[in-house]
Amino acid sequence: MRILILGGDGYLGWPTAMALSKKGFEIMVVDNYLRRNLCRNLNVEPLFPLPNLLERAKILKEITGNCISVRIGDCSNYTFLTKTVRDFQPDTIIHFAEQPSAPYSMLDHEAALLTLSNNLESTLNVAWAVREIVPECHIIKLGTMGEYGTPDIDIEEGWIEIQHKGRKDRFLFPRQAGSLYHTTKIQDTDLLWFYVRTWNLRVTDLMQGPVYGFLTKETMLDDRLLTFFNYDELFGTVLNRFMVQAVAGYPLTVYGSGGQTRGYINLIDSIACIELAATNPPKPGELRIFNQITETFTVKQLAELVRKVGRNRGYDVKIQNTKNPRIEREEHYYNPVYSGLQELGLKPTYLTDDTLQRAFKKIEEYSQNIKSDVFTLGIKWG
Amino acid sequence: MRILILGGDGYLGWPTAMALSKKGFEIMVVDNYLRRNLCRNLNVEPLFPLPNLLERAKILKEITGNCISVRIGDCSNYTFLTKTVRDFQPDTIIHFAEQPSAPYSMLDHEAALLTLSNNLESTLNVAWAVREIVPECHIIKLGTMGEYGTPDIDIEEGWIEIQHKGRKDRFLFPRQAGSLYHTTKIQDTDLLWFYVRTWNLRVTDLMQGPVYGFLTKETMLDDRLLTFFNYDELFGTVLNRFMVQAVAGYPLTVYGSGGQTRGYINLIDSIACIELAATNPPKPGELRIFNQITETFTVKQLAELVRKVGRNRGYDVKIQNTKNPRIEREEHYYNPVYSGLQELGLKPTYLTDDTLQRAFKKIEEYSQNIKSDVFTLGIKWG
Repeated sequence: MRILILGGDGYLGWPTAMALSKKGFEIMVVDNYLRRNLCRNLNVEPLFPLPNLLERAKILKEITGNCISVRIGDCSNYTFLTKTVRDFQPDTIIHFAEQPSAPYSMLDHEAALLTLSNNLESTLNVAWAVREIVPECHIIKLGTMGEYGTPDIDIEEGWIEIQHKGRKDRFLFPRQAGSLYHTTKIQDTDLLWFYVRTWNLRVTDLMQGPVYGFLTKETMLDDRLLTFFNYDELFGTVLNRFMVQAVAGYPLTVYGSGGQTRGYINLIDSIACIELAATNPPKPGELRIFNQITETFTVKQLAELVRKVGRNRGYDVKIQNTKNPRIEREEHYYNPVYSGLQELGLKPTYLTDDTLQRAFKKIEEYSQNIKSDVFTLGIKWG
Repeated sequence: MRILILGGDGYLGWPTAMALSKKGFEIMVVDNYLRRNLCRNLNVEPLFPLPNLLERAKILKEITGNCISVRIGDCSNYTFLTKTVRDFQPDTIIHFAEQPSAPYSMLDHEAALLTLSNNLESTLNVAWAVREIVPECHIIKLGTMGEYGTPDIDIEEGWIEIQHKGRKDRFLFPRQAGSLYHTTKIQDTDLLWFYVRTWNLRVTDLMQGPVYGFLTKETMLDDRLLTFFNYDELFGTVLNRFMVQAVAGYPLTVYGSGGQTRGYINLIDSIACIELAATNPPKPGELRIFNQITETFTVKQLAELVRKVGRNRGYDVKIQNTKNPRIEREEHYYNPVYSGLQELGLKPTYLTDDTLQRAFKKIEEYSQNIKSDVFTLGIKWG
């Protein structure tokens, strides 16, 4: 199976590419270094060394013999994307090529516009390129659990049957997100659902929760194969940020009361889910949606877990409840269904002290790279 | 009240501007001539003479003394838009500045991308400009009934309470559109709803059905004040197209069985609804949604009405059921609520033989302009 990975330089893209290459799939990765450029411009560089994508593919080949083809270019450039799809003739496209940060999308008008146009144009282009060149190709799109927000009803996997005034119909589960970034993901869903119905595309939309961790079989082979790991307020997801804060002796910054509940997933499971989706494609004309999480935590619980493990490792970890820069409910109902991927075969890797211990160790090796001034950058929603 | 009308050169924008100017509102219109350029490029020029926007404002002033300020520029250019908003300091912005054609949005990749980027970027820019410059300003956004599609349940006005597994919450009514254009309108709704919640904007979203007619008090003053009237497959809405087909002796092209039911509204009422929305703004933090239609018809019923009136005027009107180029249900349940605007004071102008007669007369005066080859251009959804 030929798998084209768009956004292959990113936190998820690169370890996914390595893992799927190891499994024997033929892999091409595409990236325009958008995330690298944004992180450099905003001075929120990642923690680990990060050879460029061509170098990383070369290193992987030297170490494992596995080949990953690389193309540098922009998926919102249709000429580039169609040439790539035409040359590679993928059976599956995994679409990570989006601006993935909620705080970045709230920074200013320019960042909002970049997020909106990059995310939607790349998705539009993927749908068109598949229709024009490889109509049987399976598109795996990374969505987010954040599309649903925090409704007062149980969150189903993508769809809901609504009974209303004695009649009923099936609809996309209602979506109402907490940032512009998350809103662009809702808009992606609208877009793909339209083209699936119209052109009989095959699409899997993975509603993923925040991913944590960075240690996979392949990233552990050599530090130069580690993934794009941010720990700053802009691009660092919450658990990753907490671990680095603990190592830096910086208080864990919990927004508001910390009662915000979300579904989380280990990077290893995120990759496993993508492989399961790829090897079990939906039929033409189907938009298949999975909720890609394995367990739920409040932010407070995550902070307490990190504090416990940090203290065991000799750190004096403090938790600081800061004014919430986001507009969100801090105490709310949250009951998502997430059985679909486990029915396909996912064996969850739950968050344990041991997982955190091993992550701590690697972060400690790079502790001289930590810049504490990026933990709090003062980005506000309101 | 200062009202800024974005897309003021269009089918709705121009007559709305004239009517609101007559009522004593201070009006500025903005347009980048996108629709004019597309119609010229695709050779689907409008039926009536169309002096440019600055000329039309001058003619209106000569005839009525009413002043409309004009700025030519692109709302997806944020520098231009913010300068305009800063200079004019509107109390209300009416946002018509979108690519409005479903068939155009399905033409090819370039048209799809233009529709997506123009419509969403202009809406993003409007939200940002209001937040940064005139945070109390009321945004009136033209949505479409097409956002809802044709669900098997009653269509409420924008919102629905969902009962699910013993709990309940209120959500946007589920949306599932029949073209890329209509999908961008769903995406607009997502975007505005996010910024309303986050920034306490005041927004009215008008889910409008296809508008018909072109005779208003102001357009009847002088033919040079007539509106942008398309009758082609790309930009002509169904009833307008049927009337011109009848006058041209061309069969009325009904797609498929013609059982497609939609809500319709006379241009006069469309303008009245916008005035009602403007003079009754929602409170900050409210996304108020109205279904802007006054009655429902099947396409077949419209064709029969036009045939009846056409025959009375001596035309041998034929109805031709053509293969449906769209992907849509031709027989379906359709029961929308549309009481909100009538509760605000709208007195509906229903579709009568007399309304059609008067429209026919004016079309006949320009029958030498009709180009029959634009009735059917062969644009297909699939």
